[in-house]
Amino acid sequence: MGATSLRAPRAALLVAASLLVAACVGDTGAADVAVTRFAYVYAPSAHPDEPIQPLPVGYEANADLVRLGDQLFHDKGLSGDGTVACASCHSVPDGGDDGLGRSTGIRGQKGGINAPTVLNSGLNMAQFWNGRAETLEEQAKGPVEHPKEMGGSWDAVVARVAADPGYAGAFDALFPDGVTADNIRAAIATFERTLITPDSPFDRWLRGEDGALSERQLAGYQLFKAAGCVTCHQGRNVGGNMYQVFGVMGDYFEDRGGEEEADLGRVAVTHDEGDRHVFRVPSLRNVALTAPYFHDASASSLEDVVRVMATYQLGRMLDDEETALIVEFLKSLTGTIPATGGGAR
Amino acid sequence: MGATSLRAPRAALLVAASLLVAACVGDTGAADVAVTRFAYVYAPSAHPDEPIQPLPVGYEANADLVRLGDQLFHDKGLSGDGTVACASCHSVPDGGDDGLGRSTGIRGQKGGINAPTVLNSGLNMAQFWNGRAETLEEQAKGPVEHPKEMGGSWDAVVARVAADPGYAGAFDALFPDGVTADNIRAAIATFERTLITPDSPFDRWLRGEDGALSERQLAGYQLFKAAGCVTCHQGRNVGGNMYQVFGVMGDYFEDRGGEEEADLGRVAVTHDEGDRHVFRVPSLRNVALTAPYFHDASASSLEDVVRVMATYQLGRMLDDEETALIVEFLKSLTGTIPATGGGAR
Repeated sequence: MGATSLRAPRAALLVAASLLVAACVGDTGAADVAVTRFAYVYAPSAHPDEPIQPLPVGYEANADLVRLGDQLFHDKGLSGDGTVACASCHSVPDGGDDGLGRSTGIRGQKGGINAPTVLNSGLNMAQFWNGRAETLEEQAKGPVEHPKEMGGSWDAVVARVAADPGYAGAFDALFPDGVTADNIRAAIATFERTLITPDSPFDRWLRGEDGALSERQLAGYQLFKAAGCVTCHQGRNVGGNMYQVFGVMGDYFEDRGGEEEADLGRVAVTHDEGDRHVFRVPSLRNVALTAPYFHDASASSLEDVVRVMATYQLGRMLDDEETALIVEFLKSLTGTIPATGGGAR
Repeated sequence: MGATSLRAPRAALLVAASLLVAACVGDTGAADVAVTRFAYVYAPSAHPDEPIQPLPVGYEANADLVRLGDQLFHDKGLSGDGTVACASCHSVPDGGDDGLGRSTGIRGQKGGINAPTVLNSGLNMAQFWNGRAETLEEQAKGPVEHPKEMGGSWDAVVARVAADPGYAGAFDALFPDGVTADNIRAAIATFERTLITPDSPFDRWLRGEDGALSERQLAGYQLFKAAGCVTCHQGRNVGGNMYQVFGVMGDYFEDRGGEEEADLGRVAVTHDEGDRHVFRVPSLRNVALTAPYFHDASASSLEDVVRVMATYQLGRMLDDEETALIVEFLKSLTGTIPATGGGAR
């Protein structure tokens, strides 16, 4: 866990300390349930009336399972031709995405939508822009078999992982049923949930460190609330917890010059016409690191993003100073990026 | 923690085990932050594609703070005339509420709205029917000073708690600033967050115990999804994570015979007319224990609830068999009620 684990002893002490009461119940006795159990550790807000709460300050899971997930997440062998890993499009040090408008899959194919960040994704209510997966375990099913992404098959992944003595031994030690597709996805999802980014200036301010935000950042936050941005971008992840139509106050897609498949949004999941152009509201955590923006990658700067959102979601024009203030606030949402052990295999 | 703590050692072992990696970061060094830190422990779903996930299987916090919060939660001395505690309207063994349509405050006064349950309330995105408090810490401010509820004042509560040597010693041991209103609310909120109810038949099924649900309960769940109930009642708390208008497909309030103040819903918070009759979707966890139902307590049985929701939210009639099946599913959401140490003081 690199930089993160350097500070682990103090935190581990906190959680294991005898002062703590463990109210765990319901252990069904199955080894895999105990192995895949995980915990988020929270520090309460010093501003409990604010619509945004701090990110968890810690995550706990079985260390061997996390290590295995880290290795699998970075393993290009999960793709059909051995060229693309999960990390290829979700690079943790780069903000959890690839900085591209359209990701590059096997044989150089371009995807149809801007890859969302993996950072803090365990805190979203659902995964993918259209929310078609409820959990990270479910999310992990898709890209491996998508012909334009990793272009592989879960049967082939299971066979390859089972044939690798290092992997097979690790799975056998953790799971009674050893290497299975479910267990591989459990490892990847468990690793992904460790990818929280605490300690942003905004979170330090929320936790009571008054000087953590500059005056302009604080003014930007007040404007973010007053202008209405916070109606959708709120909660711990500053988004990620509701669905909303892109184009509340205007037809973004008509103005942009037409609709593509990726613009359908949630209607592709629910087949309800009312869900056309409806997307999971993205988290704004670390948004300064994840350009370009929107599912269609049509905005390249935070200033562009703020103006488009103000126009199409709130029906208001922001002047340059207002835009700059909100951008200052958005930059205060950049937290500590976790180090990962995985490299290319 | 009574019955809950009897099973704690095994769980504590899990969390403290050397296998676990602690990824805690961001300790600011302030004693109160460390003291008020808490964690939810999750067991992943064995059905990761379902729109409902299991409740946390455990909660960890500073045991002394939880004990203090438990005591305060049950302390009638927090009210203006020493007759009403938090627990008077939120009785943990009775499903976290009082079984009344309108709660009884000091001097026998009746409140204006059906008291929501405190059980699993830490998992809701906001508190109160209209979401006017973002956190449990913020929620706790209101009832103490409401003239029809506890009719006291925070100044008086702080003075009384500070004058009690037992309380004062406990606060001094936990917080550098001893007894303050914020610290009292931190204790109460921390205790309230322990009130999770894992191990319902539905959660045991979600966690992979195939026989935990009866055939009729499983059929009821399928119908709950197919009929559209799950659109709003989903996530870990089967609700509690979005706002929705009461009366999507018909004017419930006109049909009921007029509107009262409590019916305003979220417009009272946002002053946006679009939020009239908009409420935080309630959690259906333990719903079999919390009659009467709705903010206006107008439904007394689960059958009534299901029919009213089908009519006004989904625009469909359910026959008796369909209603009965959904009720069977709802009964599968009753979990283990935590034991609390608090008694009347």
